[in-house]
Amino acid sequence: MSEIAGRMSIQAGAHSLEKAQGGRGTLLSGAPGVPPANVLVLGGGVVGKNAAKIAIGMGANVTIMDKSVAVLRALEDQFGSKLTTLYSNRSCLISQISISDLIIGAVLVPGAAAPKLVTRDDLSLLRSGAVIVDVAIDQGGCFETSAPTTHEHPTFIMDDIVHYCVANMPGAVARTSTLALTNATMPYVINLANKGIKRALTEDPGFLNGLSIAKGNLCSAEVAASQNRSFVSPKKVLATI
Amino acid sequence: MSEIAGRMSIQAGAHSLEKAQGGRGTLLSGAPGVPPANVLVLGGGVVGKNAAKIAIGMGANVTIMDKSVAVLRALEDQFGSKLTTLYSNRSCLISQISISDLIIGAVLVPGAAAPKLVTRDDLSLLRSGAVIVDVAIDQGGCFETSAPTTHEHPTFIMDDIVHYCVANMPGAVARTSTLALTNATMPYVINLANKGIKRALTEDPGFLNGLSIAKGNLCSAEVAASQNRSFVSPKKVLATI
Amino acid sequence: MSEIAGRMSIQAGAHSLEKAQGGRGTLLSGAPGVPPANVLVLGGGVVGKNAAKIAIGMGANVTIMDKSVAVLRALEDQFGSKLTTLYSNRSCLISQISISDLIIGAVLVPGAAAPKLVTRDDLSLLRSGAVIVDVAIDQGGCFETSAPTTHEHPTFIMDDIVHYCVANMPGAVARTSTLALTNATMPYVINLANKGIKRALTEDPGFLNGLSIAKGNLCSAEVAASQNRSFVSPKKVLATI
Amino acid sequence: MSEIAGRMSIQAGAHSLEKAQGGRGTLLSGAPGVPPANVLVLGGGVVGKNAAKIAIGMGANVTIMDKSVAVLRALEDQFGSKLTTLYSNRSCLISQISISDLIIGAVLVPGAAAPKLVTRDDLSLLRSGAVIVDVAIDQGGCFETSAPTTHEHPTFIMDDIVHYCVANMPGAVARTSTLALTNATMPYVINLANKGIKRALTEDPGFLNGLSIAKGNLCSAEVAASQNRSFVSPKKVLATI
Amino acid sequence: MSEIAGRMSIQAGAHSLEKAQGGRGTLLSGAPGVPPANVLVLGGGVVGKNAAKIAIGMGANVTIMDKSVAVLRALEDQFGSKLTTLYSNRSCLISQISISDLIIGAVLVPGAAAPKLVTRDDLSLLRSGAVIVDVAIDQGGCFETSAPTTHEHPTFIMDDIVHYCVANMPGAVARTSTLALTNATMPYVINLANKGIKRALTEDPGFLNGLSIAKGNLCSAEVAASQNRSFVSPKKVLATI
Amino acid sequence: MSEIAGRMSIQAGAHSLEKAQGGRGTLLSGAPGVPPANVLVLGGGVVGKNAAKIAIGMGANVTIMDKSVAVLRALEDQFGSKLTTLYSNRSCLISQISISDLIIGAVLVPGAAAPKLVTRDDLSLLRSGAVIVDVAIDQGGCFETSAPTTHEHPTFIMDDIVHYCVANMPGAVARTSTLALTNATMPYVINLANKGIKRALTEDPGFLNGLSIAKGNLCSAEVAASQNRSFVSPKKVLATI
Repeated sequence: MSEIAGRMSIQAGAHSLEKAQGGRGTLLSGAPGVPPANVLVLGGGVVGKNAAKIAIGMGANVTIMDKSVAVLRALEDQFGSKLTTLYSNRSCLISQISISDLIIGAVLVPGAAAPKLVTRDDLSLLRSGAVIVDVAIDQGGCFETSAPTTHEHPTFIMDDIVHYCVANMPGAVARTSTLALTNATMPYVINLANKGIKRALTEDPGFLNGLSIAKGNLCSAEVAASQNRSFVSPKKVLATI
Repeated sequence: MSEIAGRMSIQAGAHSLEKAQGGRGTLLSGAPGVPPANVLVLGGGVVGKNAAKIAIGMGANVTIMDKSVAVLRALEDQFGSKLTTLYSNRSCLISQISISDLIIGAVLVPGAAAPKLVTRDDLSLLRSGAVIVDVAIDQGGCFETSAPTTHEHPTFIMDDIVHYCVANMPGAVARTSTLALTNATMPYVINLANKGIKRALTEDPGFLNGLSIAKGNLCSAEVAASQNRSFVSPKKVLATI
Repeated sequence: MSEIAGRMSIQAGAHSLEKAQGGRGTLLSGAPGVPPANVLVLGGGVVGKNAAKIAIGMGANVTIMDKSVAVLRALEDQFGSKLTTLYSNRSCLISQISISDLIIGAVLVPGAAAPKLVTRDDLSLLRSGAVIVDVAIDQGGCFETSAPTTHEHPTFIMDDIVHYCVANMPGAVARTSTLALTNATMPYVINLANKGIKRALTEDPGFLNGLSIAKGNLCSAEVAASQNRSFVSPKKVLATI
Repeated sequence: MSEIAGRMSIQAGAHSLEKAQGGRGTLLSGAPGVPPANVLVLGGGVVGKNAAKIAIGMGANVTIMDKSVAVLRALEDQFGSKLTTLYSNRSCLISQISISDLIIGAVLVPGAAAPKLVTRDDLSLLRSGAVIVDVAIDQGGCFETSAPTTHEHPTFIMDDIVHYCVANMPGAVARTSTLALTNATMPYVINLANKGIKRALTEDPGFLNGLSIAKGNLCSAEVAASQNRSFVSPKKVLATI
Repeated sequence: MSEIAGRMSIQAGAHSLEKAQGGRGTLLSGAPGVPPANVLVLGGGVVGKNAAKIAIGMGANVTIMDKSVAVLRALEDQFGSKLTTLYSNRSCLISQISISDLIIGAVLVPGAAAPKLVTRDDLSLLRSGAVIVDVAIDQGGCFETSAPTTHEHPTFIMDDIVHYCVANMPGAVARTSTLALTNATMPYVINLANKGIKRALTEDPGFLNGLSIAKGNLCSAEVAASQNRSFVSPKKVLATI
Repeated sequence: MSEIAGRMSIQAGAHSLEKAQGGRGTLLSGAPGVPPANVLVLGGGVVGKNAAKIAIGMGANVTIMDKSVAVLRALEDQFGSKLTTLYSNRSCLISQISISDLIIGAVLVPGAAAPKLVTRDDLSLLRSGAVIVDVAIDQGGCFETSAPTTHEHPTFIMDDIVHYCVANMPGAVARTSTLALTNATMPYVINLANKGIKRALTEDPGFLNGLSIAKGNLCSAEVAASQNRSFVSPKKVLATI
């Protein structure tokens, strides 16, 4: 799903840059003699890499920032001189956001809230009509001013900046997302069908970890904690099946 | 402007393919293991070439049709195996539209109405939720079912097909379009400033042809005809300046 | 050798598609205005990746199927929009083989017979004159109708489908294959020369595993089993050297 | 047809390089650590350009020679560092043929016999098992030792060099060739149908020039001369229709 | 020679950017996490196109400016998103030079002095240690501060800016230049040898125009004027040969 | 730093090939009709890969040699047909150096002297005016005739071969190198600042290994040995902090 969200983010950003959406009225590719838009991607993980791929394909001038030199090196190997890689630090971030037309927030820390990289004060540095797409919104967002939106009303404007913060972005391309999800889950389904529940879970610890509810027991520690219910470990429940 | 309209058309089509816009819910690039969308571009002129360029960049499976083998050869030289070129004829068109997710109408005949390549009956062959972008709408459109729309309400759905038929598409990216237009007109402005009206028009017959109104005379034959007013040729008016 | 077989497979397939070989008479690249051939590669391992590389280079429209999303993702990263990746399942396979001009069977399961992905009944779905190249023939083949052929008589036609099933395909390009093989074995030869048999085998367990016959003992379990002879483990023999 | 012949030539050459065909046993792409084959293309016209395109795609090390710097410049612009361009002269030719694995003869002088660039004596300089593909064979060939062959027996070996000299090469891929030919002739057919013979020929001098026989008159000067018959100019015949 | 000068200009500029030459100490390609150098090419003709090609190949961030939208369109078609094209005007120039590490002056007006695009005052806007390479120096240069230098002492520093203004740049790569020159002149030499002086000059007016001295007469108007000698037209002299 | 040294090596080599530096006077890219320079890169590690990348970008004909087929395979995947990969052995090396214009020595064995791949005798095989860049000079160099040089006097000529053997090559592009170094060390600095010396060193064994001097103790075994001083292990010192 991260791949799809990353690719969608540029498409959403390009649309939001249109005048009728409140954006700067800039075409990502520019035109011969007119400079392309500057796209800044924060985070070089799966989301960021896929965002960069589409933005480059659409002809934008793309810069990606990350805190890992190894990640940046791999990106440079893949995209060559079509992508500028920058080591992320606050001063570098400030100078980049002030010349960007479109900023993709793609910094996701697994199992934690996304860091707020861009504060409300920072927004005053941006070009009027610039667009922010916060792909990390499901984890709280990496812009201070982000707030979840829907596919029906995908954007809001604050301090002259268009915010696109749709939670569940892949839902917009349901057909593609469903196929991708099916491909990812199919091996588990086949194992279930071939081996039965007990053996399938026993032989694959990763599968077992995904057990949510069994025989009336709640097996997800996170859900149990957030709903204040009692929790039984998947392993214990498995023994009773 | 044709370059900008061509590039915009894919961005508009990608957005219209989203579920919330009534589209098929297909992502142009697909995902690893999920096939990309099929994009069909009708016409290999400036609009079509630019549409193909962006669609390829976004990872779609792109086919372009034209009646000129020379045009197709040049496109193949530029895009190589990333683009399929097809000689245009009715049977080929029928088989292509029936497997397309997005169709760009980019057949423009200079100074004439665009030919209606796809009839209303043909729509029944299309995939449900497929998207049509009619870039030729300013010249009547190349889909029978096209009707001009606006940036505020860019699409309508007929027979389960999303129609995007915004007249003046480049208006959506006003900043880029203005710069492109300025670049194109600047040489004329400089000539006017340096040489004065009379000499500038005398030395450049192309410039003279663009004269619309001078000394109370209407110098455009087309406008005069359509508004039923009397017309004076630019050359005649020039002699009086 | 898998790399060479994969690259050879497209060259062999292109030749077999010629009319004089019984094929459809289709040129892989097509021509401007004429669509390229559809090439389907079953399996995204070393053979499949190298087959895809050459087929793309020759201008074909290439699709690759595999059961691993991770494998498909790496292929997409390498080949971008020039390759369509599809998650492999039976319904997907059926719809793909029916539009293919050339199918490369490259599904090899290490140490096991290749799965029969395409049955004889399936052949009726193929285009008349389509070509099958079965690179897995040394392991039984992944088409039910495959049967080993030779470089002298490389193809046979069954149900209107050209079968190319040469065992030991790299033998056709003996010069290239010999060099590749020499490069791969050279480090072992040098070690043998520098260290002597005993030390070379002792220090490199992988090398030891390759020991076939020593001091009159058969050290390969597989050969011993297939020829019904007694087997002595390499480790045991090594102690006696 | 030149495009198809050019593309076919590499496919034919790659096949002829196989050991079983008498060739050197070299794979065009080589393998990691094994150098690719050296492919030399004589002539940078349509045939040569298309041959180079496919040879590059198959991973060979490709050099193209031509007498026009302008032609070489355009090839360099299109293929960049993937192609070596060389100005053609005798000393350069000699040094190149002696290191080539595959030589494509693609020097065609419109309306004249192809020049014999490589003599029989020169063959002794070639690598044993090297392959010559003479695309100019329909005009006499550009190798002194060339002699027309057929799709059934496409090659012969002379002085240890494999000669592939099939006349009418595109016939091997009849499906692709037929479509390409149809695309090229279709505009004429449509004009004939819409306008009738007289008007169609009158309005298009190029079409008129193609008239071969009309009202019992032979209208092709070349055929008349070669068959020693009387000739009537197309223009004259047209007046009588 | 323009091609060679354009390619050389980037190599010279990259060297001049080294600290030991007085430059900024910037590597054209940057490194993963470190931004590449900004290279600005003034003029999109043969020199500029070749400079851009090499600068892109070395991994720089390249912008090219020209007064012709048609020229910029062709450059965009060839280099895609790897090159930013800008319509040239004074305000655009000012903002670009102030962020550039290396500026290539490649504006040559045939038969006229190059325009002085960058004045001495403008130099104060440049980054300290930035490098200027003036390929137009043979026509007076397109920087006000340019002055011819030699391959022995190729640069001088003025106002903290490194100036590389070697006249006859291709002389540095004499081997390559000689071959290129020979290729260009060879057709004339062959004509001379085959036809003799009189016929060769008579049949090719372009060749005749290149006649400098014949039978004691000076035939070049430009040289005659600059040396205050009498001039006889090539045509007149030809009649006496 | 290896990335920067690798990229610099081609720039240094291209400059040294100029006539005024004693080189052959060859332009890396050649020109249309003039062959490009042959660049040979010895070693496919980080230095070699980056050297190859820039040499390809500058239009040279590039060959890379390494003793690992796996390394060569990865290079072929990344650079495709733009790079020739060769398995390294003495006979192959000899035949390659004799046709090279520029040779990059990039064979570095971690913690050991670089192997002397090219002897003084071998130099006689090279083309007169060829250039050697020895990136391994800090570890003794991989050419027998190498001797360290400085940025002020970067080259010397021996046996007609230009030797570029600058120790600390990245120093020439101090700005880029400093940024790259800062990016690499920043995570350690931040850890020091956040956690204090003791905790930062305790939690990161790699960081601890880098400790050179602490509380008057020398903690680097290599330095202690080379200077004949007593050594205290980082771990022991840490306990006293």
